[in-house]
Amino acid sequence: MRITFISLFPEFFNEFLKHSIVKRALEKKEVSFDFINPRDFSLKGRADDTVYGGGSGMLLMIEPIVKAIESVKEKNSYVILLGPRGKIYNQKKVKNLKKYKHIILISGHYEGIDARIYDYIDEEISVGEYILTGGEIPSMIIADSIIRLLPNVIKKESHQNESFEKKMMESDHFTKPLTFRGKSVPEVLLSGNHKEIEKWREENSKKNTKKYLKERKENDF
Amino acid sequence: MRITFISLFPEFFNEFLKHSIVKRALEKKEVSFDFINPRDFSLKGRADDTVYGGGSGMLLMIEPIVKAIESVKEKNSYVILLGPRGKIYNQKKVKNLKKYKHIILISGHYEGIDARIYDYIDEEISVGEYILTGGEIPSMIIADSIIRLLPNVIKKESHQNESFEKKMMESDHFTKPLTFRGKSVPEVLLSGNHKEIEKWREENSKKNTKKYLKERKENDF
Repeated sequence: MRITFISLFPEFFNEFLKHSIVKRALEKKEVSFDFINPRDFSLKGRADDTVYGGGSGMLLMIEPIVKAIESVKEKNSYVILLGPRGKIYNQKKVKNLKKYKHIILISGHYEGIDARIYDYIDEEISVGEYILTGGEIPSMIIADSIIRLLPNVIKKESHQNESFEKKMMESDHFTKPLTFRGKSVPEVLLSGNHKEIEKWREENSKKNTKKYLKERKENDF
Repeated sequence: MRITFISLFPEFFNEFLKHSIVKRALEKKEVSFDFINPRDFSLKGRADDTVYGGGSGMLLMIEPIVKAIESVKEKNSYVILLGPRGKIYNQKKVKNLKKYKHIILISGHYEGIDARIYDYIDEEISVGEYILTGGEIPSMIIADSIIRLLPNVIKKESHQNESFEKKMMESDHFTKPLTFRGKSVPEVLLSGNHKEIEKWREENSKKNTKKYLKERKENDF
């Protein structure tokens, strides 16, 4: 898969490329990245301007962004704008995006982007109901969530019991030491009885899911 | 405000600290950061181990994490674990967290953290219903969303019409050029009639909110 980041701050992604899963996916050639700076497509390096009708702050201009998109877009590219008004990202969407050969992630900044951008994107995605400075961190979220599902990146077994799989939350897990400040690992996990362990995990997972769904229902921005 | 990141990869945050809003907030001394690596609190630099009861992957050990927390925690510190089972983060929560003098953000990694961690945190927060490699990107989301609301960081006017304020989505905005590839800025925004402009923006904001809420309702992981 190819992922293109359109951003005024391509260096923001430096460390992201060097770490764990992303690094591994790069080494295994499961993913490739490129970075386009809209500033390179603007007159005099200026990518933002004031808002028609008045208002505080600056807006990203339509022309440098569209030209940046067009410089990389191919027939099957999927163009995503990161923004607060987009559809809310979730694990179902991750699996859907994973199928594309090329995705283009556009980071907004300042007060936003000229609304004519909507004619040139396939979708606006929001990673959550909060306001951020720019689209760079959300772009990393999209990239990270997809990359870890690409072949040869993480063992398949690791995905099977993850939260959001089968609409369930994961069960509690424990590692050494057996007892930490008076609190011990549930005995069943030490029993070696795989059937009992599986049963405990299923019940614990159900309990975690119930708690999660209750809080989810109450969630309101 | 002081923000402590507990992470196995403190260098992940390098670029984050150098950019726009975060950089400005640092310069104005509205925020300070520190980084704690749980590896520094572990025997032989080992912070993870296998899962009791079996299962693929490695788990972060409880002891190095708890010791890392205790090395920075003060009476009024608020300790947050980033994880998929947490309460879903939103703009209401941003405003709530903004009130703390010190927040501690713990990044999970690998397959997760020993579940005894829940005795040592104030809250688990999820930035969205998807699975990521680690808690570093979510920690940046929390930090960025709060920092931009601290005093002297962004002009107050800039926040007033943002999405999620008053449970509304922002209206469309436009900047130069007036016409781009045949599509022009709505005429009313050029009228200079502030009352008419305000009316158009209110209606457009309502339209955007309606679309957003419809899609939100259908959202399911």
